[in-house]
Amino acid sequence: MENNKPTLHYMANSGSQQCLWEIEELGIEYDLVLHERANGRAAAALKDTHPLGKAPQLVTADGRTIAERSAIAFYLIETYDKEERFKVPPAGTPGFDSSKNDRLREEQLLSLVTTSLNQHLCMKCVLRVFANAMPFFIRPFALGFNKILDKAFLDAEVDNIFKFLDNELEGRQYFNGTELPTRLDFVIQWYVDFGAQACSIDISKYPRVKSWFDTCTSRPAWKRALEQGNGYDLTF
Amino acid sequence: MENNKPTLHYMANSGSQQCLWEIEELGIEYDLVLHERANGRAAAALKDTHPLGKAPQLVTADGRTIAERSAIAFYLIETYDKEERFKVPPAGTPGFDSSKNDRLREEQLLSLVTTSLNQHLCMKCVLRVFANAMPFFIRPFALGFNKILDKAFLDAEVDNIFKFLDNELEGRQYFNGTELPTRLDFVIQWYVDFGAQACSIDISKYPRVKSWFDTCTSRPAWKRALEQGNGYDLTF
Repeated sequence: MENNKPTLHYMANSGSQQCLWEIEELGIEYDLVLHERANGRAAAALKDTHPLGKAPQLVTADGRTIAERSAIAFYLIETYDKEERFKVPPAGTPGFDSSKNDRLREEQLLSLVTTSLNQHLCMKCVLRVFANAMPFFIRPFALGFNKILDKAFLDAEVDNIFKFLDNELEGRQYFNGTELPTRLDFVIQWYVDFGAQACSIDISKYPRVKSWFDTCTSRPAWKRALEQGNGYDLTF
Repeated sequence: MENNKPTLHYMANSGSQQCLWEIEELGIEYDLVLHERANGRAAAALKDTHPLGKAPQLVTADGRTIAERSAIAFYLIETYDKEERFKVPPAGTPGFDSSKNDRLREEQLLSLVTTSLNQHLCMKCVLRVFANAMPFFIRPFALGFNKILDKAFLDAEVDNIFKFLDNELEGRQYFNGTELPTRLDFVIQWYVDFGAQACSIDISKYPRVKSWFDTCTSRPAWKRALEQGNGYDLTF
């Protein structure tokens, strides 16, 4: 596997898109292996390269396989962002308010989206799938109960998190207050897109999130990544 | 809120216990505010101190409120571990293999448990609650389908992650290969305990995880935290 370039294992309709977007932003030369989903699940071949068997995976130029989106995002910037354009500027940088954009805030936002937001969005999806899979004479009860649970609990939790994210974007184009996207944006973008596409969350209710999202997806690197991949449709 | 001591908002039967464990390990003086759960949900008063309204929360000595367990774990060690006993030793430290215990590996493990493991455990729980809440004449179908989903999908995912964690502990007492617990252990311990208690996962099937878990919970600091808190029962 020794090579001068990293290899991204990209799976259709997954968070692989955000990794490829980051790679395109960084302007790295890379190899791409495209995987199709198998009955909606992860492709079996992904187990050959990492025991967790998920996408995305990045095989580094020196042959180490990295799993987990946020770890890949961390590695890519640490390794390839030589001019430090996609990082939070060090404290004391003129024109940058380090007191309002520090690593502690970044850790909180990372944890919030990867843990709580992810969990609520997954629960919304799985309950809908579960209710729809019930036999026809039960389905109305299951779907009704599903709606109650959504209304009573999950929707409020998701709304609260989106409002929080919206506030965190006040006075910021990107989440870390930088002029270019950082790891935080590459990670959060997945959850916002998954929420919008897979869970029908109307992100226009959160105007700063919507504007940030549009900024991300109008970047040429995002579009190049979409063209290189084999599909990115999160609706089901 | 200006004070010389941080204040931990601890809620019964939650991941507050792992934060208090860490505080006790670090030997910090602290104030403790105990919250009861309200109908199993987060206490309403937690919204007064942070818009996300969850526990744990740490109000720092200079009045900043931090939410999110892994961010609190990060802050506490950065701020109070002056002798760097609870950190990964820097590269080149004699007797420590930095090549096998680096930040990239830590980022992968953090992401794996906070994202994937959390998501699968929450889905297991919510499906069980959902099936049990169906009217009595539907419940057998819902519970039956729940079991099928567990067997076909969720149990295999959780088992795969626990096996991965077990392998990562080979030759290590703690997850970062250190002699004392680090942030990684304070974070992972919650998910393993939640899995064992709330989702009935038999962790004795993963002998290294079991041994690590017993090492953590036999530490005097863990026991002191249990005594200071207002309950830690994750079964339901």
